[in-house]
Amino acid sequence: MQNIRGFAALDASSPLVPHQFVRRDPRDNDVTIDIVYCGVCHSDIHMARNEWKNSRYPVVPGHEIVGKVVSVGKLVEQFKEGDWVGVGCMVDSCQSCDACEDGLEQYCVEGPTGTYGGVDRHDGLPTFGGYSERIVVSDKFVLRMSDKLDMKSAAPLLCAGITTYSPLKHWNVGPGDKVAVVGLGGLGHMGLKFAKAMGADVTLFTRSPGKEQEARRLGADHVVISTDEAQLKEVANRFDIILDTVPMQHDLNPYLSTLKRDGTLILVGLIEPIEPTVHSGALVMGRKSIAGSLIGGIAETQEMLDFCAEHGITCDVEMIDIQSINTAYDRMLKSDVHYRFVIDIASLKASF
Amino acid sequence: MQNIRGFAALDASSPLVPHQFVRRDPRDNDVTIDIVYCGVCHSDIHMARNEWKNSRYPVVPGHEIVGKVVSVGKLVEQFKEGDWVGVGCMVDSCQSCDACEDGLEQYCVEGPTGTYGGVDRHDGLPTFGGYSERIVVSDKFVLRMSDKLDMKSAAPLLCAGITTYSPLKHWNVGPGDKVAVVGLGGLGHMGLKFAKAMGADVTLFTRSPGKEQEARRLGADHVVISTDEAQLKEVANRFDIILDTVPMQHDLNPYLSTLKRDGTLILVGLIEPIEPTVHSGALVMGRKSIAGSLIGGIAETQEMLDFCAEHGITCDVEMIDIQSINTAYDRMLKSDVHYRFVIDIASLKASF
Repeated sequence: MQNIRGFAALDASSPLVPHQFVRRDPRDNDVTIDIVYCGVCHSDIHMARNEWKNSRYPVVPGHEIVGKVVSVGKLVEQFKEGDWVGVGCMVDSCQSCDACEDGLEQYCVEGPTGTYGGVDRHDGLPTFGGYSERIVVSDKFVLRMSDKLDMKSAAPLLCAGITTYSPLKHWNVGPGDKVAVVGLGGLGHMGLKFAKAMGADVTLFTRSPGKEQEARRLGADHVVISTDEAQLKEVANRFDIILDTVPMQHDLNPYLSTLKRDGTLILVGLIEPIEPTVHSGALVMGRKSIAGSLIGGIAETQEMLDFCAEHGITCDVEMIDIQSINTAYDRMLKSDVHYRFVIDIASLKASF
Repeated sequence: MQNIRGFAALDASSPLVPHQFVRRDPRDNDVTIDIVYCGVCHSDIHMARNEWKNSRYPVVPGHEIVGKVVSVGKLVEQFKEGDWVGVGCMVDSCQSCDACEDGLEQYCVEGPTGTYGGVDRHDGLPTFGGYSERIVVSDKFVLRMSDKLDMKSAAPLLCAGITTYSPLKHWNVGPGDKVAVVGLGGLGHMGLKFAKAMGADVTLFTRSPGKEQEARRLGADHVVISTDEAQLKEVANRFDIILDTVPMQHDLNPYLSTLKRDGTLILVGLIEPIEPTVHSGALVMGRKSIAGSLIGGIAETQEMLDFCAEHGITCDVEMIDIQSINTAYDRMLKSDVHYRFVIDIASLKASF
């Protein structure tokens, strides 16, 4: 076992503090990674504060991890010391169910092993995330990071990126399609970039005026203020796909009215009951759908990273030291971040 | 204008009574049809009683119409006197929007003209349905009825049939697929027959025990009592498609848990707000969808009728005289019908 330093929530009400914990010794198929950058995802806050009622303390958050390979187990062929690599939301899965065999480990019928807050399937030890100096991960769940990528701003691709890329690909977004993105946060701004890069005509739905210029810079062709009924009417029956990235309860009905016949609204943010209730007539009257999508599989995550390298896409990030993490959480809850915080893990040393 | 005899609701609270009303004189592209049989759809009750708040009295219900051609306008080539024909839920549409051009007149952006309770697009007259001796319909909205069909039991195909056939076809149900049908009423029993004829492995979800034998006769391979948690668990993550035919509010969450990854629950009955609310996690965690589907287009309705003729499929019906219509409504509200009432329109004469 290795003693590792990181920042952890020790109980539901505590801020994140410097903390020592153990990582497993590397197995033969493991890659040991020195973490260089780690993005800060909204779910880190939920988990640190036990808002999903399944946290086990200590919680070391972080699943948007970029780092350098320190060493590899003797069965590992794809990676070598010094490689830039990434780790996303999963570090293992059963690898034998239909979902795993289809490369969709996020839907593993046994449930994938979370990068943090999970339990290792082999030794039963808790998993700890990327707000730490080092991580040990089975090679099948390690991603290659192209040299073309800026590593700081590529870190959030491992969650915010794949979460928006995967549904756009699955629902076959391409040239000529009309895609709307709801929300302009960490996920939303990536939705705009990907939809644009895939050739779609892209609209941002936002509640706040004044984001026009910023939205266009990120790839939007149009901006619609979702609280303005006249603007909503103008885009009635317009969109093939609506990518809804809003991570809290909100009314889907106005958005459904803007779907084209056979259109689909895809939930990637919301993970609460849908409130207010949806009127089924809004689906029946145009053969419309509400769907959900969860991150993406490992192979698709690699495809997304390669797509980003090819198209020059990364996230818009604000770098922070780990010591600012609690302030960063507070700012995220006020939507005061453009568009993702990334922790420079080098700063960790100053706290120990 | 022609004076026509039928049964109508004269206001929201009245029972259906004998009533005289006018039909338009036939136009050059019209088919005049002597109605022989008319199925009784649950929406007839809603409209007769103004439960959707858009009824215009008098309301002559009926949109599962089978009859014989009396005469055709001079531009009509497809039909001739004496042909058995059908009329479903629509008698016209704009015929120029994307939906109409795609043969999906039910999603006409201007809204199709309802067989009853609508307004004729050309002369502004109200439309009256099939609880009457005669109807005049534009040839594009008239269906051919194969001689192989039993006309009495084929009448409900025009609504209950196409409403269940269309989504099963659209979502590509075929051999090897696992399809569940929720509810065993007019729509549900047709869902079982169609899913079976398309080669699927078919399950009936029902709240009531004791329907096993009947469900198997109609095409079900399995029956699951939807209120039995143990039975629900046994079919967790099982179905590719769930066809939900229940016409009132009910909890979708238990059914969503039985969808396979990438599965779709299709609402064809419910046209109310979805209550209780759906947990979006139930969609996100398996890339599942809730969709809606409305009847079917005219070309697809013809395809369905031909499919029925080929596969020997019709509805299970109980014949009634028009004088029993109010009792029939009462029985339908108690689910006391196996599985569709059909009015023998010859009985109409006795009331005038």
